[in-house]
Amino acid sequence: MRLSNLYTKTIKNNPSDEQSLNAQLLIRAGFIHKEMAGVYSYLPLGKRVLDNISKIIREEMNNLGCLEVQMSILQPKEIWEITDRWDDKKVDIWFKTKLYNGQELGIGLTHEEPIVDSLKSYIDSYKSLPVYVYQIQNKFRNELRAKSGLLRGREFLMKDLYSFSESQEGHRKFYEKVIKSYQNIYSKLELGDFTYRTYADGGIFSKSFSDEFQTISPIGEDDIYVDEVKKIAINAEIYNDLNLKKLSLDKSSLVLKKGVEVGNTFSLESKYTDALDLYYTDKNGHKKSIIMGCYGIGVSRLMGVIAEVFADSNGLVWPNCIAPFKVYLISVNEDPKSKQKTEVIYKLLTQKNIDVIYDDRDVRAGEKFADADLLGIPYRVVVNQNFEDKQVELKHRKQNKIEFVQFDRLESIIY
Amino acid sequence: MRLSNLYTKTIKNNPSDEQSLNAQLLIRAGFIHKEMAGVYSYLPLGKRVLDNISKIIREEMNNLGCLEVQMSILQPKEIWEITDRWDDKKVDIWFKTKLYNGQELGIGLTHEEPIVDSLKSYIDSYKSLPVYVYQIQNKFRNELRAKSGLLRGREFLMKDLYSFSESQEGHRKFYEKVIKSYQNIYSKLELGDFTYRTYADGGIFSKSFSDEFQTISPIGEDDIYVDEVKKIAINAEIYNDLNLKKLSLDKSSLVLKKGVEVGNTFSLESKYTDALDLYYTDKNGHKKSIIMGCYGIGVSRLMGVIAEVFADSNGLVWPNCIAPFKVYLISVNEDPKSKQKTEVIYKLLTQKNIDVIYDDRDVRAGEKFADADLLGIPYRVVVNQNFEDKQVELKHRKQNKIEFVQFDRLESIIY
Repeated sequence: MRLSNLYTKTIKNNPSDEQSLNAQLLIRAGFIHKEMAGVYSYLPLGKRVLDNISKIIREEMNNLGCLEVQMSILQPKEIWEITDRWDDKKVDIWFKTKLYNGQELGIGLTHEEPIVDSLKSYIDSYKSLPVYVYQIQNKFRNELRAKSGLLRGREFLMKDLYSFSESQEGHRKFYEKVIKSYQNIYSKLELGDFTYRTYADGGIFSKSFSDEFQTISPIGEDDIYVDEVKKIAINAEIYNDLNLKKLSLDKSSLVLKKGVEVGNTFSLESKYTDALDLYYTDKNGHKKSIIMGCYGIGVSRLMGVIAEVFADSNGLVWPNCIAPFKVYLISVNEDPKSKQKTEVIYKLLTQKNIDVIYDDRDVRAGEKFADADLLGIPYRVVVNQNFEDKQVELKHRKQNKIEFVQFDRLESIIY
Repeated sequence: MRLSNLYTKTIKNNPSDEQSLNAQLLIRAGFIHKEMAGVYSYLPLGKRVLDNISKIIREEMNNLGCLEVQMSILQPKEIWEITDRWDDKKVDIWFKTKLYNGQELGIGLTHEEPIVDSLKSYIDSYKSLPVYVYQIQNKFRNELRAKSGLLRGREFLMKDLYSFSESQEGHRKFYEKVIKSYQNIYSKLELGDFTYRTYADGGIFSKSFSDEFQTISPIGEDDIYVDEVKKIAINAEIYNDLNLKKLSLDKSSLVLKKGVEVGNTFSLESKYTDALDLYYTDKNGHKKSIIMGCYGIGVSRLMGVIAEVFADSNGLVWPNCIAPFKVYLISVNEDPKSKQKTEVIYKLLTQKNIDVIYDDRDVRAGEKFADADLLGIPYRVVVNQNFEDKQVELKHRKQNKIEFVQFDRLESIIY
């Protein structure tokens, strides 16, 4: 893509109404637009990142044998009253609205109830189980305060997976598979080395622990105790001798760190399935409870976390796999011959299906360099006098390393 | 995919609370789940169809050089007050909600205002124009009645494109390109032969006509006059001698038909851009108005229209390009040898990247045949005694035609 075709522009100064680094950088670089506190629109560059993260998550979910659905955002209150999650005194983050006849509706904040309800038409016997369904969808939370950019939104993109198993054993087996999938996702996003499976409170439903995935970062809002050798952590909220013993964790190997939550997995036992009257009949004709799990990853939150943890003083630094473009192409000289050479490189890379953004603007080279950095594009390719030797200058954004490479070798370096 | 891995099942009887054929069939076949009147969730099969339609539309938009964005669903009222589209007396289909501090929010029904507002950070000179942005996103309309299934939803998936041009000439040129794109889309969806570009009221903003795309069908709510030779139509609402003359249409060649609207395109002049203070500076340094267009296609509505217009007495009939699966594979005999042969065909087709649903259930062949028809899968492949001659039975759902083919020829027939 030619930069002249991209309508967004970089902004020099930080927006005055943003406190969080992720929102500041993403707005300055033209990835997002603030509609109001906690509500952002995704502009072309931001949409590409969001899609790239979604694609990685979707592949992992499909590999697990999960089926993708799209539940409605508008929610009838009846199913939420059954589980006692409608009343604002019980769940204080609902956005609610009304039909013209006065009937109250909720605006989806999660989807346990409607998913269970939709399964009632289909699940009867053990032959129908297990069921694994997920969606990637906007969710809404009426947060009192929203000052963390994409980290805590009033509207945000979420992957939510729900599992339905006939036994604790079957549930547990799948649950651990999801944990592995989540670890794959964080590894692909280059967060793996400092993202910890973290034991947390199982909530009121479950005697077992729940799991969070916590990325170590000073921006984190959670205190977690990390065992760096075992690659496991425990949330400070449940840090006590009894739990340490249960989890075979040794106090002396644990270090207190700040973590930002990038995913969670819950065993819900049969709380929702029983309440909404979803049972199955086993091989012997007996009516049995269905064991449910739910597994969340905030897609837009991940975009915010990644923006923030990898950023340097020059701007964003995207991991290759989710960068909006792989290559930022620049010609330092404005003469026709240089431009023509740059066009050659542009075509060469584009033909190899490498996503290139070609800065064809009529501005100083310094401005182009600054924008390449701010946008966080992994490879900056500069066409200059070395072109005569069939060489271009290649800068690796992350390592801040510059090398000269033969341009027919470019595609073997860029991944 | 094996049918045993798909949790949805077909339902014999029509749901008692649905009047429209599209909702009846899509619910019976397990494509959608009704949450409330006008609000449906998309189950795995339905999600696939929706994604396939979106993909076709997205390709056409990208080919036009449009950039994809994702605007927020939550809307601040201020920008809508400026254009006088906030008050319920002016726009009576808003769903509205509130922050805890009492601040009113809208739930997006369209996105002219926020799109224009977001461009204010970026558009200044003629060099920034034109801009073409689109999104594929859930929209919300507080409809009084919603009895038409996916044809008129309170929550629905929509592609909306917005164009910003520096002159009427530039606008008109792009507008006609969009018309061509829309025609490509309807052709790909196999609606082309009976979908008409239809002149309609330009609204209060424009002296020119707007365009609707109307698919001829008895389910249509619009009266349109069709010129079948010129492949053009005029909405009955603006059918008068003056307009016929303007459009060079001849009364004697026009036939009155029922049409269902499957897209529309509007010239908005500079109504919204002026109101929201989005201008540009031309080459001579003069401040100029920006000419805007908006272009909609209801993705979920299209799914409903296609479900309804192609259905026959046995169920759904999907066009190949959007069918959730291309092939419905059945073994008529349950003996191990027949099953093994069916597995061979399943692997063969799957390896060729053909989407196959393999009915591996332990039910009568008649039930499988009925489900293959109801689901509307384009090709039904039956493995029976002819397998000894390396032949399978191939049924074309649409033509209701059965032939016997060598199974190594299957992939050349299926597209």
